[in-house]
Amino acid sequence: MQKLQFGVAYYPEHWPQERWAEDIRLMQAAHVTVARLGEFAWSSMEPVEGQFNFAWLEKAIEMLAEAGIATVLGTPTAAPPAWLAQKYPTTLATEETGRQAQFGNRCHYCVNSPEFHTASRRIVQAMAARFGSSPHVIGWQLDNEYNRVCYCDHCRAEFQAFLRERYGTLDELNRHWSTAYWSQSYSDWAQIPIPIGPHNPGLMLVFRHFVTRSYQNFQQAQLDELRPHLPPSVWVTHNFMGWFGAFDHYTLTRDIDFASWDWYIGTGHIDYLTTGAIHDLTRGFKQKNFWLMETQPGNVNWSKTNNVLNRGEARAMAWHAVAHGADALLYWQWRSALGGQEQYHGSLIDQSGRQRPFFDEAKRIGQEFAQVADLLFGSIIQSKVALLNCYDSRWSLEFQRHNSEFDYVRHLTHWYRALAARNLNVDVISADAALDQYELVIAPALLVLDEARAEKLKAFVQRGGRLVLTVRTGMKDRHNALLPQRQPGTLAELAGVEVVDYYSLLEPVPVAGELFQGTSQLWAERLQILDGQSPVVLACFGASNGWLDDQVAIALNPYGNGFVYTVGAYLDVASQQALTDQILNDARLEMFETPPGIEVRPRTLVNGEPVYFIINHTRLPQTVSLPWAAFDHLTGKISAGEMEFAGYAVAIVTRQKD
Amino acid sequence: MQKLQFGVAYYPEHWPQERWAEDIRLMQAAHVTVARLGEFAWSSMEPVEGQFNFAWLEKAIEMLAEAGIATVLGTPTAAPPAWLAQKYPTTLATEETGRQAQFGNRCHYCVNSPEFHTASRRIVQAMAARFGSSPHVIGWQLDNEYNRVCYCDHCRAEFQAFLRERYGTLDELNRHWSTAYWSQSYSDWAQIPIPIGPHNPGLMLVFRHFVTRSYQNFQQAQLDELRPHLPPSVWVTHNFMGWFGAFDHYTLTRDIDFASWDWYIGTGHIDYLTTGAIHDLTRGFKQKNFWLMETQPGNVNWSKTNNVLNRGEARAMAWHAVAHGADALLYWQWRSALGGQEQYHGSLIDQSGRQRPFFDEAKRIGQEFAQVADLLFGSIIQSKVALLNCYDSRWSLEFQRHNSEFDYVRHLTHWYRALAARNLNVDVISADAALDQYELVIAPALLVLDEARAEKLKAFVQRGGRLVLTVRTGMKDRHNALLPQRQPGTLAELAGVEVVDYYSLLEPVPVAGELFQGTSQLWAERLQILDGQSPVVLACFGASNGWLDDQVAIALNPYGNGFVYTVGAYLDVASQQALTDQILNDARLEMFETPPGIEVRPRTLVNGEPVYFIINHTRLPQTVSLPWAAFDHLTGKISAGEMEFAGYAVAIVTRQKD
Amino acid sequence: MQKLQFGVAYYPEHWPQERWAEDIRLMQAAHVTVARLGEFAWSSMEPVEGQFNFAWLEKAIEMLAEAGIATVLGTPTAAPPAWLAQKYPTTLATEETGRQAQFGNRCHYCVNSPEFHTASRRIVQAMAARFGSSPHVIGWQLDNEYNRVCYCDHCRAEFQAFLRERYGTLDELNRHWSTAYWSQSYSDWAQIPIPIGPHNPGLMLVFRHFVTRSYQNFQQAQLDELRPHLPPSVWVTHNFMGWFGAFDHYTLTRDIDFASWDWYIGTGHIDYLTTGAIHDLTRGFKQKNFWLMETQPGNVNWSKTNNVLNRGEARAMAWHAVAHGADALLYWQWRSALGGQEQYHGSLIDQSGRQRPFFDEAKRIGQEFAQVADLLFGSIIQSKVALLNCYDSRWSLEFQRHNSEFDYVRHLTHWYRALAARNLNVDVISADAALDQYELVIAPALLVLDEARAEKLKAFVQRGGRLVLTVRTGMKDRHNALLPQRQPGTLAELAGVEVVDYYSLLEPVPVAGELFQGTSQLWAERLQILDGQSPVVLACFGASNGWLDDQVAIALNPYGNGFVYTVGAYLDVASQQALTDQILNDARLEMFETPPGIEVRPRTLVNGEPVYFIINHTRLPQTVSLPWAAFDHLTGKISAGEMEFAGYAVAIVTRQKD
Repeated sequence: MQKLQFGVAYYPEHWPQERWAEDIRLMQAAHVTVARLGEFAWSSMEPVEGQFNFAWLEKAIEMLAEAGIATVLGTPTAAPPAWLAQKYPTTLATEETGRQAQFGNRCHYCVNSPEFHTASRRIVQAMAARFGSSPHVIGWQLDNEYNRVCYCDHCRAEFQAFLRERYGTLDELNRHWSTAYWSQSYSDWAQIPIPIGPHNPGLMLVFRHFVTRSYQNFQQAQLDELRPHLPPSVWVTHNFMGWFGAFDHYTLTRDIDFASWDWYIGTGHIDYLTTGAIHDLTRGFKQKNFWLMETQPGNVNWSKTNNVLNRGEARAMAWHAVAHGADALLYWQWRSALGGQEQYHGSLIDQSGRQRPFFDEAKRIGQEFAQVADLLFGSIIQSKVALLNCYDSRWSLEFQRHNSEFDYVRHLTHWYRALAARNLNVDVISADAALDQYELVIAPALLVLDEARAEKLKAFVQRGGRLVLTVRTGMKDRHNALLPQRQPGTLAELAGVEVVDYYSLLEPVPVAGELFQGTSQLWAERLQILDGQSPVVLACFGASNGWLDDQVAIALNPYGNGFVYTVGAYLDVASQQALTDQILNDARLEMFETPPGIEVRPRTLVNGEPVYFIINHTRLPQTVSLPWAAFDHLTGKISAGEMEFAGYAVAIVTRQKD
Repeated sequence: MQKLQFGVAYYPEHWPQERWAEDIRLMQAAHVTVARLGEFAWSSMEPVEGQFNFAWLEKAIEMLAEAGIATVLGTPTAAPPAWLAQKYPTTLATEETGRQAQFGNRCHYCVNSPEFHTASRRIVQAMAARFGSSPHVIGWQLDNEYNRVCYCDHCRAEFQAFLRERYGTLDELNRHWSTAYWSQSYSDWAQIPIPIGPHNPGLMLVFRHFVTRSYQNFQQAQLDELRPHLPPSVWVTHNFMGWFGAFDHYTLTRDIDFASWDWYIGTGHIDYLTTGAIHDLTRGFKQKNFWLMETQPGNVNWSKTNNVLNRGEARAMAWHAVAHGADALLYWQWRSALGGQEQYHGSLIDQSGRQRPFFDEAKRIGQEFAQVADLLFGSIIQSKVALLNCYDSRWSLEFQRHNSEFDYVRHLTHWYRALAARNLNVDVISADAALDQYELVIAPALLVLDEARAEKLKAFVQRGGRLVLTVRTGMKDRHNALLPQRQPGTLAELAGVEVVDYYSLLEPVPVAGELFQGTSQLWAERLQILDGQSPVVLACFGASNGWLDDQVAIALNPYGNGFVYTVGAYLDVASQQALTDQILNDARLEMFETPPGIEVRPRTLVNGEPVYFIINHTRLPQTVSLPWAAFDHLTGKISAGEMEFAGYAVAIVTRQKD
Repeated sequence: MQKLQFGVAYYPEHWPQERWAEDIRLMQAAHVTVARLGEFAWSSMEPVEGQFNFAWLEKAIEMLAEAGIATVLGTPTAAPPAWLAQKYPTTLATEETGRQAQFGNRCHYCVNSPEFHTASRRIVQAMAARFGSSPHVIGWQLDNEYNRVCYCDHCRAEFQAFLRERYGTLDELNRHWSTAYWSQSYSDWAQIPIPIGPHNPGLMLVFRHFVTRSYQNFQQAQLDELRPHLPPSVWVTHNFMGWFGAFDHYTLTRDIDFASWDWYIGTGHIDYLTTGAIHDLTRGFKQKNFWLMETQPGNVNWSKTNNVLNRGEARAMAWHAVAHGADALLYWQWRSALGGQEQYHGSLIDQSGRQRPFFDEAKRIGQEFAQVADLLFGSIIQSKVALLNCYDSRWSLEFQRHNSEFDYVRHLTHWYRALAARNLNVDVISADAALDQYELVIAPALLVLDEARAEKLKAFVQRGGRLVLTVRTGMKDRHNALLPQRQPGTLAELAGVEVVDYYSLLEPVPVAGELFQGTSQLWAERLQILDGQSPVVLACFGASNGWLDDQVAIALNPYGNGFVYTVGAYLDVASQQALTDQILNDARLEMFETPPGIEVRPRTLVNGEPVYFIINHTRLPQTVSLPWAAFDHLTGKISAGEMEFAGYAVAIVTRQKD
């Protein structure tokens, strides 16, 4: 557990040593407490196979340490050197097109290549031996933004071996994938392809499991080399990319100490109701606070239009991240190399070595971080509401959207937004996680269902929990095969209803009840009350395609000590808010209404008290009504009643004891 | 000749035998009379090369037969098994990108592969030997939706051999393709490529002929194995895909007994003025009634938004198909396999094995089919109007649109719609077919002209026929070379006009005459009256690009006992209707005006009397004025004067004899 | 130096000799003075390797000469024959996808292939030996529209050799490309890839230099074979494609006598304010008059919608070209071959061998060219204003737009348009050209700066010139590395300001000064006055993203005897015109205001007097006020005061001496 950190990505290898002192002086001026180094420096650390040059890095770490700046070291495997690609061409990944990846961008590696594993272990081992016990290195980042999927023959053979391990026999595999369909039956493991484009849903899903396993193995190889050299206090993380979906993040975070992520806006500006979900997702990977290992100092260089964040916007974003559980924030990057692909990326220092205008905003954040670091030390995020996230469901829906506009993440976020608009803390967690601490659980499009999940949800409701099931729930098993029940599969007993049929919508259909008169968009499910059950009908569809007319859209069923909402509509925004408010009211969960754009979020301090982050995410002044007198830890002022917020203003308040 | 059939695609190999009885019971309930089996079951029938397992299929056929349900058997070559791809990799097609097709979807075969021919003959021979003489198998479908074009080296060599056969000498080929242009002269057959992307128009056109020949050979190989085992009453068909255009359908239907097609709407709803043309096209392949081998039970799974047909819409569609000559309608499919690529496709039975809401609509159709089957037995479609369809013209125009919006099929359909809106029966037939039975012939964009065609059209007009020539007529020969005459080539004598120049339009240009004040879109042709001719000018262009201003757009020329309309404009919808109405009036062809969305179509019964299908293709009630008292064979009621139609309502009426 | 020529591309090899006389008779009727022959006729000239057939070509040249029509001969290397591709497959280029180019379109060659060089030298040598001394051949065109970039292994090896020559050592290369970034350091020349897609900016830029060098070598090989056979009066040119950007045109035009270009509109109509820049660019390649080697007779065939030019538009375009320095105009093509890819291209003669309507317009142009040929003989374009064009800057910006809408050519043209709207002659010249003759120099987005350039600009201003710097100036060095100064790099001293930061804009931001109240679009640069400098602030940004609010946008700095404008905004059209007018006023450069669509341009006759081309580029009548009595050389009439111009009318006037 560390205090709130403020930092930058720093690449001393891009600059002559004479420059370093000036850089570090400026970092100190900006209240930087941590620098990340080394994650793309393989060719600087091992210029020739097996010959290491760590002197420069050691020097940089020491100079930083002397200035009170700790180091996070990255293993450099995301940028393998040219000599490796030349000597071992099989370390280069094969793209979906069949073409080999080109050297010179990043992640051109085959994640399963034995030669690449050997080379990776060697460099990690050498770094660990040299820096593992350094008092200045507080933690490690493995690789960088895992993202490559390889389609080479070696991967295909590994995939076939993985399938043999997973299924045991081809009969079992053929059965689970229904390969009698389209004459796909396999009589030899070697016949099975890596799927490219649409293919058998079973094959497609398990290939994602294989990609997950591939990264898990690769990560483990690095951990095997690294861990033995680390004191217990030194942690290991990886910087993920939010909703990036090539692998199962719950599996990959199992073996590291906490999750990090790299937060970029790209084109446009922050939409905090959407980005909050990503912070909460990343926190949910290990149900622990996380690091923001990279974030955008003003602008990026890789988007369509690389506009700058408005003045003050980055500061609001920084506190938004902290409010959602970030324990560190590092800007990428300190200064651009004079060459290379990211010359135009935002930075604190410009090409001339001087401060960019953004430097001042960063400095203010650094100073404020330092100001509240003691207060926030050990604080956590507590929530009574969970949103369940399931990669299998997501992948299955992405393979077969059925409505091209139906997007799993957007659907989950649709539910998230209505909660976040009421300033509720939400945990976005694995659909396989324990639910003991929650009062309300929302399971958006929980397509994939197995007995364990069903049992867990049943137990949750039984003991008094409130469960919300949405469209596209309970349709598939773990092999991406249809369940031989109507939706929501084995949850029907809880729901008190079943789905008679589902409808991909070309146009919205009317849906109405006491709570709202609205529409369902993209999707609708015709509910039917099960014999012997008597759920309350909350809304029905109106006249539309003839099949849905006057049918049940939303039902509320008591079960055990709890309740299950089955929502067969994908509601418009206003109706979704009305329904959500009702659900929250039913559950007696406290909402905090604020003007649009004003976010209020508590972290729970070690003393159990909440500290509230109040953030104006708009450019205009806003007023927030406080229920009690509040002490602002940034200004030292006490406010009561109406509190004024300038554009992008932030307050960090605790309740003033009378 | 069989009675009107109602059926489904059924895949017993997806299910345990214990389930079959229940499926068949439900089929009976839905009035199913025919099931199609086997067309994707190669790996179930021949799990190991040369080892056949037909027991399950025989069992299924027998169980169906016991329930009074006949079987249509599909040869399974559209889904070759994994062991074949593994043992004979050359059976896999090569895509345009140079990459080999992946196993596991369909039609991954090289249609010319000798190894694939061998394997196809073996499985077809084995099926034929086993089931050819079965009294329960009433017909066969070869392969499924031919569609693959292969670019492998073997195909290239076959193509070169085909060219040698077609042209005899390279001199002849070079001459027809004008290869002096861009230094393309070939001095060795082996130099000739398969065209990928834009290429020499002659090469591009003849490659389509080669694709046609390839499928013809492949089809013949199957027929050679199959026919010897079939009694004379058992027919052979193939299920085509409407306007799909990779090969010449007139050539491919020559050797089968009748044509079938697979009718899917995908996203959206039926537009009967457009779909009518596709039924009429398919009927025109052999100028015989056809089967609807597959159609959409509610929704598909492969489109952008897989919306469901409105309640009642599928029934209206079913009768629309019958009204245009369908003698059978089979829903695809009965029930989805639990796995495989089409889990979400519409079906009659859902994943739980129970009836979907659509089942009731299908059942009603089945019941009604049975009700009128005797009445319709032997009935046919008769028409006095023909629309000429020419694949060579279409391909040539698709290769070189000159206006990216100009589409051959859309242009033909533009003419079709104005006829269909007046409820005229239309035959869409080959531009090479005999015209003896017609009074009016429309030849939309008949770009490719040879002497035989010109002579046939001349004879048609000479004997009193009315011929309509449209834009882009008479520009090319059979080798896709320009004719050395102005348009319309050798038809100029008939037309009394020639095209001085043609214009691809960026904006519509005005065109006006006594019949209408409208515009021409996409295209315009400046007509000039030939010396010594005196056609009537029906419309002229208005002020536009300077070249067209005040020039002749549409002319009507008497020739022999007939007339030729030359229409140098691509008219807006209202003007097109006005012109069409005039042409129909001139020809004294009876129009039947109905409210928009109401279709009226006769089939001619064996007694020579017409039976009228009156279909409301809209969701709203409509009223149709009947000229005589009508007996509705569905309701048994007699109506006279105004007849009411609810949304999607259908009546099948004959004139009530007084 | 030749008189104004009027001509066509003619392909006698497409037609039997019996037709030639008629073609030539029609050319005479159209006042054709020159025909281009041979540039795609390789297979007709060398049907078998090493066996030449020039008899037909000699015959055609002679028949043309007898009709008074001179010949320009093209070397046929842009269309290598089939036998060459077959025998030497390495002569085929490799595409970016890794696939080999297909025979049968054009430019399928690898420009570096030794076998292709050998074959090219042989055919050029043979042509030169046969026709080099012909009195009828007045000039030669090498190849045709250089455009292919090859990605084969041979090119990669040549590229690596080129880099070794350029950089000497890998250390030097690594340093200039900052390869420590992303671990890109090269330890062996053989490791360096040809960049495909985004890559290291240094590598990407120098690859364009390699492409330039490749064409330079290929061109030199042809010149080596050709020049020894040519009398001094016979010139050599190449037909470029305007703004086409795969190579540096200044380098490639160094070794030829003058530049030519092929001017096509494609879809739509002429926008003379944009096309004028392309003529001026082509003239600027060698700062000499140029030839329009191909232009569009009505319509093309390769665009989306191949609309025709309006009647009269082509004539206005012809004079527009001459007004900008064209000394010849040749229509492509005389008549389409009956086959081949361009059957539908515009031409003077149609498929039937008769005149198309366009023939008359061409004939009028030919007749008028003859009418003024003596007058214009030796006349040139003189300009006091230069726009600097830099391929390195352009490429760098195209690789890294930072705002997807920011386009170098569009930005340069934005500046051009405001000048051209005031009817000023403008030279578009290399940023490395001498500036002695100019009073105003505009350097749009001169991103790449080196000492020589900076010194040259400094000297220009020092001696009294006016220099305009725009956005994105002075950011990079010749290796595409960031300069270690703020923008505008070493020009800051001249500018009196530096760029504190640059902003890619998602929305326009307000910018205002005394001259205008407008907006900046796509881009904005925050200027800061340098210590000790006192430029005039011409405009400031308004409230927007917080960083730009109230900051300096445009400044004017006196330096030496001159002035420097630094324009940190990408102004809307009206503001850009207001600023430009002010700059022109400041420089006392004479503007000629005309109604929109009326162009007035002078050429300077050998006697030093100007001849004015007045062109109505609109379809509507317009009136132009003349400052003096004018003699129109086309009509022979004298006008004074208001002169009427019908749609697309043209006058060629000199001042009538009293």
